[in-house]
Order: sequence, then structure tokens, then C-alpha cells
Amino acid sequence: MKLYRVYGLNGCRMLLLDKTTRYRITKINIVQDIVNNFGIPILNTFDNVHTYSKKIFKEKFNNNRAQGIIIEFLANYDSQFDFNAVVKKDHCIVILDSINDPQNLGQIIRTCECAGIDSIVLPSNSSISITNTVLQISQGSFTNMKIYIEKNINRFIDKIKKHNFWIAGFENSISACNWFDIEMKGRVCFVFGSEGKGIKSLTLKKCDYVGTIPMFGKINSLNVSASVSAILFERIRQIKTQ
Amino acid sequence: MKLYRVYGLNGCRMLLLDKTTRYRITKINIVQDIVNNFGIPILNTFDNVHTYSKKIFKEKFNNNRAQGIIIEFLANYDSQFDFNAVVKKDHCIVILDSINDPQNLGQIIRTCECAGIDSIVLPSNSSISITNTVLQISQGSFTNMKIYIEKNINRFIDKIKKHNFWIAGFENSISACNWFDIEMKGRVCFVFGSEGKGIKSLTLKKCDYVGTIPMFGKINSLNVSASVSAILFERIRQIKTQ
Repeated sequence: MKLYRVYGLNGCRMLLLDKTTRYRITKINIVQDIVNNFGIPILNTFDNVHTYSKKIFKEKFNNNRAQGIIIEFLANYDSQFDFNAVVKKDHCIVILDSINDPQNLGQIIRTCECAGIDSIVLPSNSSISITNTVLQISQGSFTNMKIYIEKNINRFIDKIKKHNFWIAGFENSISACNWFDIEMKGRVCFVFGSEGKGIKSLTLKKCDYVGTIPMFGKINSLNVSASVSAILFERIRQIKTQ
Repeated sequence: MKLYRVYGLNGCRMLLLDKTTRYRITKINIVQDIVNNFGIPILNTFDNVHTYSKKIFKEKFNNNRAQGIIIEFLANYDSQFDFNAVVKKDHCIVILDSINDPQNLGQIIRTCECAGIDSIVLPSNSSISITNTVLQISQGSFTNMKIYIEKNINRFIDKIKKHNFWIAGFENSISACNWFDIEMKGRVCFVFGSEGKGIKSLTLKKCDYVGTIPMFGKINSLNVSASVSAILFERIRQIKTQ
């Protein structure tokens, strides 16, 4: 278990309302006015609640994203992927390779949550880990997303293949097919590389398909979180129009 | 004309290579090492080039995104939309209503450039304007995008309707149709509202269609730049599969 901090009303509210056992809240720092107006009676059920006046809170934490509330909690992202949890017909795992910008990772978690993705897998040796900034940018979405940090991503892919997942990699490549030509229904695993580095070659070899979003400009610097969004909602389109 | 500053290699390179008359470069601040390695002989064709040692540049500008180059230039975004420029069969104008986060605006400019959008229109009274931060985040994409600030967006929509554009609005709304059910080929104008405020009601009334991306999570806080990406590449899919 590692200690994290989440700032701000959205993220904190989601964390307080979370009913899973994935997070253990250890401390709540909150402004008295927010306690009165937060509208979560559940606050009474936590032990370690510290209330402050606005002025003292600001002096003590000096974080303009806090909005009067900061929660410290323990979470463990190094856990094993649970294959017994794969029960839905259209199950989608997102693997993020070489994502090193916390802004991008936070945004991708938000997008995955909205697009009904079942879990996100991060290779421990090639993507940034979960940090307070990542959680902050995810706007509370992390509370509704299974995130796993895997030591050996290629072995993980071998495993999920045995559970009848198709693997589709997406990166900038002129030899790849159009993203919408890839069959996205059923059990699928999408692997995304970063804008610069793409997907590592060993991992790319394990992909059953490789898709790309062709570019129509001159600069053509599509952010990885933008391409993730285009692809995940193409999956939704395919599922809804089958 | 207004004075802007762009920082960093990507944006500056695009600006220097730009062949339109939209930007007038007034000053180039650059580290001597970068002059040697920048690979743009075109640098010699500008008058007001100031070179510095790394140390002095850092002391003087103290901006960790500069990467040793800062360009000052004049641009005018208040110009009139040019209807004579509408010649392509699939022409797409993007109107951004109530976008107030420079991060989002910069990202949307990047995505529009990659998705072959012809122009972006910002209502002067309800969206943030073009700022140095917006240009910075667009990673040089702004140099290949026609951006117009319009005083009266509703009158603008009336005008483009006369030029045979279909208007499609996109916002969070349970009564709207799925985004992919909207016909996106030909002359289209997409109106996007922000996550919070949506599209202003008078503008919404002028839309021929209203589409939405339904949400599949619990938190469902899709960033506006993520939804713009999903919709703009759905347009590309429709054009490429017709």
C-alpha cells in the first residue's frame, strides 16, 4: 500500500462515496465551511477528520486546487489482474505503454471511465506510475477505474490471449490500418504508445492488429489522450451499431 | 494586431516556416547553441534576432518551456471569415462556445489541426481568447489553423447557413441523438459547448442537429477536448467510408 493525497471537491467526494475496499482513507483535512456545505453525512463515519478555518487551511496546505478539502488515503495498484472479473461480453482492457506525462495519464483515466473501459494496465518499467497529480487530473475518475501496474507487460498479454482477448495496438504508423477497420467488439485489449516513442517493439509483435489514426494537417501532433478518446468511442460506436 | 509570444522549438519552428501573411514576427530571442543546431537557415532572413548564452537566456526569460527560443509576433484573430475560401467538398468549421480553460483550447486546436478542420471560430463574449498559453499548448498547430474571433456567433451561424452549411451542436444531453448518427460529410459546422455550461440556448436553437456522446461510467466527466476528438475523427471515419 502506498500513501496518496487527493485534492478538491470532485475527487474527494468520489473517494468518500466509494464502496469498494480498494482505498483506505487515513486522514481528511477539511475547511469547516465545507463540512457544513459538503452534503456528505458519511463524513461522520471517518475517524481522522481535521477541520480548519479557511485561513489556517490555506496557510497550512497552500494548494489552489484543494477547494477546502484534502484526503490522504492508502491504495495498492500493484495488484494482480483478476481474470474472474471478466464476465461482460464486451470487455476492454487498456494498456498504456510509455506514457510519461501525468497530465496525459490523468486525462486518459477520465476518458476510459467515460467510455466504459474495464481496466487500465500500466507497465511498471515504461510508464509513469500513479501519482497525486495523476489522480488530481483524473477528477475523481480513478475511484471508478481498476488500475493495475504490471511488471512484465508481454507476459500479461500472453495471459490475456489465453482468455480469448484480441490485442490491438495503436500508434503512428503509415503501414497500420485505419483505426475504424479494427473489430472492437467482444474481449479486446487496446495497447497505446506515447506520441514520441510508440509501442515497444516486443509488445507490438504481440498485437493481433495494429491500427492508426491518419493525420490530415501539417503539424500532426495529436495528443495521445486525444487519440485514445477517438479510438475508445469508436469502440462504443461499433458496439452500439452491431 | 496583437502581440503574442511563443515558446519552445516546435511552435517557433512552425512559425518561422509559415508562409502565410497571418503572422508578423517582431523579435526572436534565441540561445546561440540553438541557432547552430536549429537547422533553419531561414533565421537569417529576420531582422530582430537576439542571441544569448544559455545562462543569460535562462536568467532573462526564466521559462522552462522555452527550450532556448522565444518568438514575439503580431497576429490578428479578429478578422472576417472568408467565405470565398470554402471550396472543398468536405468543409468543416468548429465553433467553440464557453471554452474557458486555455489548456482545453490549446488541445482542441491541436486536435482540429490533425483532423483536417478548416477553421475554428471563437465567440468573443463567451470563450477565452487566444493567449500565449493557448498557443503554447497547441504545440505549433495554431500556425496551420485559421482561427477567428466572432462578436456575434448567432449571426455568424445565420450567414454560414446561407452558404449551405449544416449546423450540428454537441453537448451532454439525454435528449440528443448519438454523435455517430449525425451526418458529418459535406459542408458542416460543429458547435461544442464546455463540460459545465453546454451551448448557449439561442445558439443551440440554431443547430439543425444536436448530438451527444453517452457516458458509460459513474463519474462521467469527459473533458471537452476528449469529446471534440471523438467527434472530429468520427467525421473522418464517415468521409473515408462513404
